[in-house]
Amino acid sequence: MKAVIKVRLKNGILDPQGKTVNNALHHLGFGSINDVRIGKLIELTIKEKKQDVARKKIEEACKKLLTNPIIEDFTYELIED
Amino acid sequence: MKAVIKVRLKNGILDPQGKTVNNALHHLGFGSINDVRIGKLIELTIKEKKQDVARKKIEEACKKLLTNPIIEDFTYELIED
Repeated sequence: MKAVIKVRLKNGILDPQGKTVNNALHHLGFGSINDVRIGKLIELTIKEKKQDVARKKIEEACKKLLTNPIIEDFTYELIED
Repeated sequence: MKAVIKVRLKNGILDPQGKTVNNALHHLGFGSINDVRIGKLIELTIKEKKQDVARKKIEEACKKLLTNPIIEDFTYELIED
């Protein structure tokens, strides 16, 4: 199975990188673009026969290593081969 | 409108960050996880009335600033308010 994990900063958490990109876009003439937020897109393969086992492992990996649960949220989707 | 942009390293481009995370996952006992690739998830709002104008601007912003077209690919979706 393949997993696509979207990691986003929680609402209310400042995103200095996004702010910087936002400003740079304005300087380049993209004045209609705003509210830039930058997160992570993590893709991986997982060899488990049962989807519920795969889900459990991915959620555990997200909580233990892939995200910082204090400032980040994640969502993911599993794609069967 | 809101745009969600997925930025991925092109196939064949080494991903040392993904490799490091992959190894760390194995050390933590997630042996069934492999092929970790780490990209960016960029979310923004764009104030354009016409979808085709919004699409053009987002593609231009991706090529000029948000991605490195030599090593990265992007896909995006527009979400109407």
